[in-house]
Amino acid sequence: MSERLTAVYELPGPASEAERAAALIAFEETVEVPLDFPLAPAIRDGIVGRVDAVAPIDNGRFRAEIAFPAALASGGLGTLLNLVFGNASIWPGVRLVDLRLPDALLSSFKGPNFGVSGLRRLLGVEGRPLLATALKPMGSSHAELAKTAADFARGGGDIAKDDQNLVDASFADFKERVSLIAEAVARANAGSGRNCLYLPHLSGPQEELAARLDFALSVGLKGVLVCPAIVGLDQVRALAASRKVLIMAHPAFSGAFYCDRSHGVETSLYLGTLMRLIGADVTVFPNAGGRFGFTREECRAVAARARSPLGALAPCLPAPGGGMRLDNAAAMAEDFGADAAWLVGGSLLMQPGGAEAGARAFLAAMREAAAEIRD
Amino acid sequence: MSERLTAVYELPGPASEAERAAALIAFEETVEVPLDFPLAPAIRDGIVGRVDAVAPIDNGRFRAEIAFPAALASGGLGTLLNLVFGNASIWPGVRLVDLRLPDALLSSFKGPNFGVSGLRRLLGVEGRPLLATALKPMGSSHAELAKTAADFARGGGDIAKDDQNLVDASFADFKERVSLIAEAVARANAGSGRNCLYLPHLSGPQEELAARLDFALSVGLKGVLVCPAIVGLDQVRALAASRKVLIMAHPAFSGAFYCDRSHGVETSLYLGTLMRLIGADVTVFPNAGGRFGFTREECRAVAARARSPLGALAPCLPAPGGGMRLDNAAAMAEDFGADAAWLVGGSLLMQPGGAEAGARAFLAAMREAAAEIRD
Repeated sequence: MSERLTAVYELPGPASEAERAAALIAFEETVEVPLDFPLAPAIRDGIVGRVDAVAPIDNGRFRAEIAFPAALASGGLGTLLNLVFGNASIWPGVRLVDLRLPDALLSSFKGPNFGVSGLRRLLGVEGRPLLATALKPMGSSHAELAKTAADFARGGGDIAKDDQNLVDASFADFKERVSLIAEAVARANAGSGRNCLYLPHLSGPQEELAARLDFALSVGLKGVLVCPAIVGLDQVRALAASRKVLIMAHPAFSGAFYCDRSHGVETSLYLGTLMRLIGADVTVFPNAGGRFGFTREECRAVAARARSPLGALAPCLPAPGGGMRLDNAAAMAEDFGADAAWLVGGSLLMQPGGAEAGARAFLAAMREAAAEIRD
Repeated sequence: MSERLTAVYELPGPASEAERAAALIAFEETVEVPLDFPLAPAIRDGIVGRVDAVAPIDNGRFRAEIAFPAALASGGLGTLLNLVFGNASIWPGVRLVDLRLPDALLSSFKGPNFGVSGLRRLLGVEGRPLLATALKPMGSSHAELAKTAADFARGGGDIAKDDQNLVDASFADFKERVSLIAEAVARANAGSGRNCLYLPHLSGPQEELAARLDFALSVGLKGVLVCPAIVGLDQVRALAASRKVLIMAHPAFSGAFYCDRSHGVETSLYLGTLMRLIGADVTVFPNAGGRFGFTREECRAVAARARSPLGALAPCLPAPGGGMRLDNAAAMAEDFGADAAWLVGGSLLMQPGGAEAGARAFLAAMREAAAEIRD
């Protein structure tokens, strides 16, 4: 296969340093030998990355495009990550900002099982953002969490997910807790005629993940919340690839990759593209104006990469969350449009009247904001 | 369980900001609600992290100790990582620098299967550092890689590992390549009477990892090289926990966690402690003076955390590598002492006479450096 994939990096200047760094990365990520190593011509031309461009960008840094033989990523996602950001992850100042993958490689990924349209069909909700909440706080009884979930469903909420901090010390605890919450949400749905989804947090020892997931599906749930940076990106891909499961990806433990903008992996590439590649139907990310220091541009970029065409992969629904309040509904509607999930935890649960009233209040704010934007 | 584990963070100042950040992290990583959320007293006292200390350190930053109930990490390694650095990973300027885990929690980890003494017994090598090399460059034929491995074994080398960039596009390719190299090293060992270990790179789709590992063991190999940041830390732990396998951990893709010193996870905590917790018998890390910008102090700290007492876990052998040369043998011997593996790739393979002569040259330099330090 002579086809190439292109990895784009931001590098520190000056130009001569950026050019040198690009050449070194092309070596480091493939043959990993000194530049003066006596390489066979077939390896030098056919294996070593090809630096296609190094150009200045407006932040004083440089953008380098390196084309690697696509065959070097034929071992799957892990091989791809290793190729484009294995040792490069350890070089200060190197940020992977884009990946252009040939269709043949993209088609080896199943991608989201449901995608945006599949998720909307599950819910029977069209034309507006979805409303999601997190079941918390940690330390609440199972019954309290179940009540919060059912209240939220009765209030018109769409997705009640476990807080990613919730801990089940054993598989038995997981079964008991998840069953109770699932039943409570099912009863609320029976009363409302709606179909609020409950997504339990899939965590725990690696040895039990598949069984916990299958248990959740066996009690009628459609999917789970999972933290790919903790569980392993390729593990999530594998779990999603072999089942019709809805995956909501949470960014816990992944922030080290993107929260310092001078190295790592571009936020939208990690939380948009990579989450979609591993099969996330929904990707949770910290919203601007919350407590995590993201800009509106960065958040819009995550949404764009989650939803824009990417081979034949279904779109992934962006779910901005973190510090969201009733009074920033207008900005949310403007930034993300209809195809998003508003993930509102604390400030929804703290509304007078609890999760039911909180869901109603946020849905009302959502409708008002959407109407204003349309006018 | 009222026992606590302590996570130590470095935070930006001034003092008032560091104190506020510590309080927020204690909330964020547990109940994840606004500070004014009406928490039940049992949750406020028994679940929320307890800020034990916030004190200035000499780099103008602050060191905060937060004690979390150990029960909150009872779901295993993933739960522990989520607890101490889940959402905190997304906060700019937060660096996790230490973890103090109670013995009950530590004892839930099996740790390294062989450890330093077990590895030495496998090799029959005492009293000096081990010599390791990487089979490369990518693009070489299986026969060429096998010849390099066998030459290295004949030259007296101890561990020939696959370069972590090597790709096997299929399980069949993996079997063919690994068998050929394993046989070549076994023949060299039969000739020399030594026991050089060959460690193939365990990578590829998640679905095949266990089978690939078992294949490697089935052809008589003792262990593998693996990249935990790619495969998943808890996946490596699970693979190692259920088999008597030697694990050599490679840092590919993990650099985003530590290469910027102002956030992420302290280098030695990630590459020393965490690798040991998941069962690494050997931990590879970039050596000072090479191309990755690590200081000698940082490298010594990795080695210290790999080898120092940690519950009942066996010590892990530090394997500094990356840009090592004959002329820095003295510094290597001084920095790491006898209980280390010197991982020398390009500069060993480039010695006149190839890997056999290269191994002899580095072993000679190692003996000379050790003698100088003893004198």
